[in-house]
Amino acid sequence: MEISRRGQSVQASPIRKFKPFADAAQKAGVKIYFLNIGDPDIPTPKPILDAVRAFDDPILSYGPAQGFLELRQGIAGYFAGYGIDLTAENIIITNGGSEAILLAFATVADPGDEIIIPEPFYTNYNGYASLADLKVVPLTLKVEDGYRLPPAADFEARITPRTRAIVLCSPNNPTGTVYSAEELRRVADLAARHNLFLIGDEVYKEFVYDGLKHISLLEFPQIRDRVIVVDSISKRFSCCGARIGAAITRNEAVYGAMLRFAQARLCPPSIEQKAAIAAYKMGIGYFEPVRQEYERRRDVLYDGLASIPGVTVRKPQGAFYMSVRLPVRDAEKFVLFMLNEFRLGGATVMVAPESGFYATPGKGLNEVRIAYVLKEEDIRQALIILKAGLEAFQAVEK
Amino acid sequence: MEISRRGQSVQASPIRKFKPFADAAQKAGVKIYFLNIGDPDIPTPKPILDAVRAFDDPILSYGPAQGFLELRQGIAGYFAGYGIDLTAENIIITNGGSEAILLAFATVADPGDEIIIPEPFYTNYNGYASLADLKVVPLTLKVEDGYRLPPAADFEARITPRTRAIVLCSPNNPTGTVYSAEELRRVADLAARHNLFLIGDEVYKEFVYDGLKHISLLEFPQIRDRVIVVDSISKRFSCCGARIGAAITRNEAVYGAMLRFAQARLCPPSIEQKAAIAAYKMGIGYFEPVRQEYERRRDVLYDGLASIPGVTVRKPQGAFYMSVRLPVRDAEKFVLFMLNEFRLGGATVMVAPESGFYATPGKGLNEVRIAYVLKEEDIRQALIILKAGLEAFQAVEK
Repeated sequence: MEISRRGQSVQASPIRKFKPFADAAQKAGVKIYFLNIGDPDIPTPKPILDAVRAFDDPILSYGPAQGFLELRQGIAGYFAGYGIDLTAENIIITNGGSEAILLAFATVADPGDEIIIPEPFYTNYNGYASLADLKVVPLTLKVEDGYRLPPAADFEARITPRTRAIVLCSPNNPTGTVYSAEELRRVADLAARHNLFLIGDEVYKEFVYDGLKHISLLEFPQIRDRVIVVDSISKRFSCCGARIGAAITRNEAVYGAMLRFAQARLCPPSIEQKAAIAAYKMGIGYFEPVRQEYERRRDVLYDGLASIPGVTVRKPQGAFYMSVRLPVRDAEKFVLFMLNEFRLGGATVMVAPESGFYATPGKGLNEVRIAYVLKEEDIRQALIILKAGLEAFQAVEK
Repeated sequence: MEISRRGQSVQASPIRKFKPFADAAQKAGVKIYFLNIGDPDIPTPKPILDAVRAFDDPILSYGPAQGFLELRQGIAGYFAGYGIDLTAENIIITNGGSEAILLAFATVADPGDEIIIPEPFYTNYNGYASLADLKVVPLTLKVEDGYRLPPAADFEARITPRTRAIVLCSPNNPTGTVYSAEELRRVADLAARHNLFLIGDEVYKEFVYDGLKHISLLEFPQIRDRVIVVDSISKRFSCCGARIGAAITRNEAVYGAMLRFAQARLCPPSIEQKAAIAAYKMGIGYFEPVRQEYERRRDVLYDGLASIPGVTVRKPQGAFYMSVRLPVRDAEKFVLFMLNEFRLGGATVMVAPESGFYATPGKGLNEVRIAYVLKEEDIRQALIILKAGLEAFQAVEK
């Protein structure tokens, strides 16, 4: 009695699979600096928590499959603030940005179809590609180039009759790269030329540094009908456990199919939708101090990493991750070493091994993703531990 | 630029697709008795709402992919109360029972594989079969037989080399039938003989009448490794908007694959998990008065329907639905007629057309599912309207 091929092949999340080792270390009294997952330590804004606590419906009942109208209007209003025209009818509220990925994948592609994704990429695309039985065709980027997008010809070399979409994440998880208007236009033109969909994961929209501005795939008229944007309140409002995201498209056929898929799961959670309505009512004034906080953290983490011998890293402009090449052969073993063996002052650091962020076998073996989701002093402390841990591991790995 | 085949073919939920017409009628001031969806009017228990309001984490952060341990322990304890041995490690908390269906489908079957489901069945299996690209092989049951399961040979006639699982829902949505130990054993033996998985949708476990007892697929030792149970707090605790369900299995390979799929979506919503923990702490004393309330409603609805000329219905023993054959040619047109045209004292009734609960084309065209989720006096009023509406529609349809 065998389980399905996809069930056998779906990867364990490299963000999640070492959690049991972390749990064991914590149980043994070890303090862990969690830089493995994008779960910010910024307090959830009070209006969100207040909305949760103010929930006073006598019955916690189903909402609409596409989500509450007021929330969809709130999101449309948020995008309008960036000059992006959307209506509530372009938006489906989802169970986190995660479900929006699934809806997008299943709506543009059938089993065996291909989607092109620059790698390293957000590892959970792999899980959804397995679930939807799609083939991820990777396009390998390099830390030395700052993970910039390659020329159109590099994409075109990977397009086959089964290619259905290109997935772009900007600001990027795990690299932190923010794609320029020129880079995005290059891919937009390419998608139009080759009749492809574009799936834009833009959940880190608010986290852009160095005076740059995030540009959305929704801003390119030549691909107006080709774009599905994956959105989420998780990072934007520091409330990852809310599980409220959105799938956004102006293509009516795509919207219709995504909604029919969404109807099967009835509705997203009602309470957190009300919390999300409150979140968007805060206005954009909320973002700037948070953005500045992350920019400072980025600088601290970058400076610290750049000063560790053998570490290769480029300063990223967005999100709250860095992809880092370590002076080790096997980053997964290093992560386990840190969780199971290495302690400095009773503490250790958890980062995410990055091979699972690649679709090409053998890539990323000596890379990790580090999330700067902790406050500066914690990052500084984590850097000290990381540096010492690396030295200790290098001695062991030899 | 075409969307995927599965995106084109996925059905609109027959429970959901007429919602816009209901919205329009309500906007025009019409009172609607909603008997189309299993969204109970029983108030959500206070401990659940209190737990929501008591949420006091400063950060609404990610939880474990498999759900909070305390909740999984609570669910295991609940099943232990029925003599069913489970541990927290057999349980994955899901985004409603809905996600458990998806995890189960994707874990037992690959695209093009087949699952056998007695029809009429919970219509949203169709949506998930489309998403996972499975072929639903229906086994048609009949209202005249009370929708009892047929002999093993009827199942066996539908088994092919691609058959991976049989899906059984008991108490059944939409028929209300509660399968007997003998019926379940027949299918359990069959699954063992033909090396199939069994997916048991048992979310209506607490809603069983006439002194009957619900029997779970988890109770049959010969299929201990073959069973995945879909569970949910939505109906059990009258909190459909919470979106907390569970996928339950004792098969470690199945559990591992479901968990890896689940890791891609990070975690179920945190606040409602805490609410669910509170729910299970209420103890089984909560259920009996609720069960009695539904039993009374069933009797009122059944007696009322049975007295309408031309209506065919058998008295079901569980859940809170009845599958009913109406004296009309096209139940979908009847539903639209009720929403768009028919009013009695400024009110109308919404029921769910049942063709979408069948996989066999042309089946169920004159059937509807009626949910007795409203209080007795509302059901009585709805019956008066339904009867009058039927007469009016029959005159129009002729």
